Amino acid sequence: MALYVHKYGGTSVGTVDRIRHVANKITQARRQGNDIVVVVSAMSGETDRLLGLAREMQEHPNPRELDVLLSTGEQVTIALLCMALESDGCPASSYTGAQAKILTDASHTKARIIDIDTSRLRKDLDQGKVVVVAGFQGVNEEGDITTLGRGGSDTTAVALAAALKADECRIYTDVDGVYTTDPRVEPRARRLDRITFEEMLEMASLGSKVLQIRAVEFAGKYNVPLRVLSTFDDGPGTLITYEEEEMEQALISGIAFNRDEAKLTVEGVPDQPGIAAAILGPIADANIEVDMIVQNVAENDTTDFTFTVHRNDYAKALDILQGVCQKLGAKKVTGDDQIVKVSMVGVGMRSHAGIASRMFRALADEGINIRMISTSEIKVSVVLDEKYLELAVRTLHETFGLDQAPAA
Amino acid sequence: MALYVHKYGGTSVGTVDRIRHVANKITQARRQGNDIVVVVSAMSGETDRLLGLAREMQEHPNPRELDVLLSTGEQVTIALLCMALESDGCPASSYTGAQAKILTDASHTKARIIDIDTSRLRKDLDQGKVVVVAGFQGVNEEGDITTLGRGGSDTTAVALAAALKADECRIYTDVDGVYTTDPRVEPRARRLDRITFEEMLEMASLGSKVLQIRAVEFAGKYNVPLRVLSTFDDGPGTLITYEEEEMEQALISGIAFNRDEAKLTVEGVPDQPGIAAAILGPIADANIEVDMIVQNVAENDTTDFTFTVHRNDYAKALDILQGVCQKLGAKKVTGDDQIVKVSMVGVGMRSHAGIASRMFRALADEGINIRMISTSEIKVSVVLDEKYLELAVRTLHETFGLDQAPAA
Repeated sequence: MALYVHKYGGTSVGTVDRIRHVANKITQARRQGNDIVVVVSAMSGETDRLLGLAREMQEHPNPRELDVLLSTGEQVTIALLCMALESDGCPASSYTGAQAKILTDASHTKARIIDIDTSRLRKDLDQGKVVVVAGFQGVNEEGDITTLGRGGSDTTAVALAAALKADECRIYTDVDGVYTTDPRVEPRARRLDRITFEEMLEMASLGSKVLQIRAVEFAGKYNVPLRVLSTFDDGPGTLITYEEEEMEQALISGIAFNRDEAKLTVEGVPDQPGIAAAILGPIADANIEVDMIVQNVAENDTTDFTFTVHRNDYAKALDILQGVCQKLGAKKVTGDDQIVKVSMVGVGMRSHAGIASRMFRALADEGINIRMISTSEIKVSVVLDEKYLELAVRTLHETFGLDQAPAA
Repeated sequence: MALYVHKYGGTSVGTVDRIRHVANKITQARRQGNDIVVVVSAMSGETDRLLGLAREMQEHPNPRELDVLLSTGEQVTIALLCMALESDGCPASSYTGAQAKILTDASHTKARIIDIDTSRLRKDLDQGKVVVVAGFQGVNEEGDITTLGRGGSDTTAVALAAALKADECRIYTDVDGVYTTDPRVEPRARRLDRITFEEMLEMASLGSKVLQIRAVEFAGKYNVPLRVLSTFDDGPGTLITYEEEEMEQALISGIAFNRDEAKLTVEGVPDQPGIAAAILGPIADANIEVDMIVQNVAENDTTDFTFTVHRNDYAKALDILQGVCQKLGAKKVTGDDQIVKVSMVGVGMRSHAGIASRMFRALADEGINIRMISTSEIKVSVVLDEKYLELAVRTLHETFGLDQAPAA
């Protein structure tokens, strides 16, 4: 008998009928003789509705009260799901974050889980009940309700799986797994049977928004086998786990991309210590998140400093840099908000040389100009003109044979 | 410096604007130097919306889960109200029933309050904060969420006032006090400055639905001064308190009436022990609530047995009685669902004889036939044909001078 944690997001429980469908899935899993703990989000749209009410009340809603308000969303879902389960003849009990004793720090609206006391949940499981826990929420030492931030339900599920030493944490979503790339761009994209935690982190942070990064980090840290699969279709999904020695590893697992990028360059910066900090400090102070950073070797004692930001922050960043440019005595500031980032991710890169050069050659063969390059141990990212995005993704998908399953 | 408990019902907090209005009232009361604890209901319509969802999920929703679901209604209001208060510059903290440590028994959907640990609320008050507590809900010893049943927010307010030894518990509603009778029937009806707990209980149970009976009982038991007043208009409202020796007591405080009555009579019942039980047993078994019961003295060894029920239960009760009649060898069953009950209530009756006869004479002078009579220590109720309701109420209102304030 295995213990599974299931997690269903807002879309999966978005209507009364969908909650009934989820209840059926859980009842089936339970009847196969497994212990089931379920984590659910608020019904889709509910969190936004509550946020809207809060903003009508107060320009910057008090964070403690915002958590009290938002946590009602999941509380509604856990109760309705338990009713649907009982209606299916499957005994179930619901728990809010506080009742499940998910202890967090006191950072309202972005709390971190410190500990979970699972004794009461265990008792219910021992009595043959399905345990349904509200995602996204916890309680601090004072007894105040806290929330974990958007997408925190994934984190709740992984944390519960770790605390209960579950055999697997199953994240049910509206996609049936993790793909080699976005099927809307490359129809031949293939579902991966498995992917490593590190690859998943790179894929997630690069824009394949299947799972919350924090949840993947958490799963990796506590070695919780994580599976992404569809609420609406049957299928094995994608297992996210540690790299196994004996497992035949594909060179490249997938191609991620991000359309929302813009790049900025300070040209002709005097090449001296402290320049990077002088440029990026004011950007960070303005709460603008910086993604890629590239600095070329100096020529004639000056250098060009380039970085990318979210497209929404482009105008603001450009404005800030004009002032920085003058102060540093740099030549000028240029920028482009019609760019995209395309990245190849794979732990296979570690042991295989030449991936990057094959990538660059394939792009060059299609006449695609590379504007920036950045690499890490398991990924190569390039910045391209936006118009080349689809062509680049399809070219790389084909070049690295991602439409075919790796040989066993 | 006084401590007041304010309670605002669903209509008073039914919209964002109304919550802001309530916040303004509270801020004013706070700035007058008083400590304020606020109890709020769910926004009007919310509890029904949640109930509807529950019934879609399960024919008879699991009571534990129903409480988890319904309690979100008030939780939304406490958070929004605190935001509105903070936006007014009035520091406030919200508490769910569980967080306010309102300990109840385990009877889900109709729990009774056992104890309240006010230590954390006191700490907030000492720090100058307004404390906002979710009405209608508590927590049992297991940590499960419980609710007190419809209208339970009044009970929460009175219980908190008792536990905190508040100077007054103020129930804000959409009426500006308790009236001598319904102003829609008698335009000269007068707002009472004060009324005793006992009178209020009789008025409430007789159909003047201003306050929950349980809350009035609770206030009487713990001697919590209770005031009913309007959320929307200023004014002193009506104070509900104990009878004071020195206070000039009106003979009659008010006239209550109930349109939803129907009466049933079993005629020619053999006059022997156990008859009442034999007639009312099957009625009770069918979950029909019986109001007035009258049995006349026997003539020729048989008697007539009459009682009233809610008009909705009339057909069912009639049906049950046909069977009972045969079994008992009674003559026949008759009934009438076009009747009303009119009651005069007043602690002054205790020390003044002749109230009932003055009442009967006044009705007779208008040609109104009395169909049934029932009396208690502080009330006289008569059953009349429905068409006489308004005439009877106005006649009695005039006869007993209720439109004039009692002489000081």
